[in-house]
Amino acid sequence: MRRIKVTLAYEGTEFHGWQVQPGLRTIQGVLQEALEGLENGPVLVAGSGRTDAGVHALGQVAAFSMKNPIPAENLKRALNQVLPKEIRILTAADCPEVFHPRFDAVSKTYEYRIWRGEICSPFLQRYVHHHPFALDVEKMIEAAPVLEGEHDFSAFAAADERDILGHSKVRRIFSSHLAIQGDNLTYRVRGSGFLKHMVRNIMGTLLEVGKGNLTAAGLEDFLKPGQSIKAGPRALAQGLFLMEVEYPN
Amino acid sequence: MRRIKVTLAYEGTEFHGWQVQPGLRTIQGVLQEALEGLENGPVLVAGSGRTDAGVHALGQVAAFSMKNPIPAENLKRALNQVLPKEIRILTAADCPEVFHPRFDAVSKTYEYRIWRGEICSPFLQRYVHHHPFALDVEKMIEAAPVLEGEHDFSAFAAADERDILGHSKVRRIFSSHLAIQGDNLTYRVRGSGFLKHMVRNIMGTLLEVGKGNLTAAGLEDFLKPGQSIKAGPRALAQGLFLMEVEYPN
Repeated sequence: MRRIKVTLAYEGTEFHGWQVQPGLRTIQGVLQEALEGLENGPVLVAGSGRTDAGVHALGQVAAFSMKNPIPAENLKRALNQVLPKEIRILTAADCPEVFHPRFDAVSKTYEYRIWRGEICSPFLQRYVHHHPFALDVEKMIEAAPVLEGEHDFSAFAAADERDILGHSKVRRIFSSHLAIQGDNLTYRVRGSGFLKHMVRNIMGTLLEVGKGNLTAAGLEDFLKPGQSIKAGPRALAQGLFLMEVEYPN
Repeated sequence: MRRIKVTLAYEGTEFHGWQVQPGLRTIQGVLQEALEGLENGPVLVAGSGRTDAGVHALGQVAAFSMKNPIPAENLKRALNQVLPKEIRILTAADCPEVFHPRFDAVSKTYEYRIWRGEICSPFLQRYVHHHPFALDVEKMIEAAPVLEGEHDFSAFAAADERDILGHSKVRRIFSSHLAIQGDNLTYRVRGSGFLKHMVRNIMGTLLEVGKGNLTAAGLEDFLKPGQSIKAGPRALAQGLFLMEVEYPN
């Protein structure tokens, strides 16, 4: 068996997220099906992490083992022939047998895109959260870096995430920035890892800051150990992009 | 009755073109349905021209008459509330009762977008013709302006367009240019009017020039009076955008 690492982009609108689910169209499922066609046998694809239904990716990383000796570059082309156009393999390369896209990742970068204009272009509407209402963007820009550093992000975890004893919700955020360019408001966050729904919950919370319902100090309170109130609400999936996953050189 | 002029943008992928067709989802049909809900009666929408299934618009112009006295700006908002997000009303204004978006138009501008990169981004694939093969782009750029001026465009008319006695196929092209920017190849054409499939047939013919199957002189031959060979083949619908329709001031 050889092991192959791929980076891929996908438009998540018409998928039920990354992870295989019986009877539903998922990125992992469609990818495994394409690979199994080439392998004539089962292939298990591991991703750097699950993305929710409707979330997009510009640089998701996945890996799988297979017997087929096809050169990686040809495999990339063969996969792009059979995959739906909403999923594209950007790179494919042989990698060490022990490589795991989730456990070996040292950082992930997400972007959340908001469109503030009155009318959302039909060509943008699948890729942004349309928010044509008043926002104190300066306050949001000020508040975003509060999340940087090592914190317990329990308040930003999914409401349905079970507390498994020994599963830490401490994560390190390397950078957390909001930028405005015309009617585009883009939040970019890079961290050691993210809990389920964490980026969308952060975005929803930053929007509360913009609406005047929360201060930067209030945002900081959510990071205090032992506090049990949930942040949020969760922002829409369609504005979220997994941009990049980094590994040690 | 009052008359209202609207400009609109739409993403044509999931529509069977502009024109109402029984049982099919069309731009005109969806728009009329939305208006009829507001008018409580029949509304007939006239467009500047039909766009084919899959063709997009950034600046289509339409007009309709209605009794409802709602201010035009509110009508715009009300329509955008009920229309699918793939159709957006960009402007709405009262206009003279005699205004007709097709007969009063003095020019139309179309763009055809080609993506030449090896891999077509999932976020572009609905809006471009992906052509990752060799093209002599310089030859195409040279040939494009050959179409400028007043010519009989019979060779570029749809194969199924009937020759109706007295219906001239002479059109005036004000500008016809191809521009390259990185992997984007964009053809922009502005003219007095266009025959059915004309821009897509022009684009397909320019691609033949790029592939070395036709010269600029060969392209010119298609414009000669009395020649009966069809140009083409027709390029895919999804790369085509109706950009703008102009009217006398």
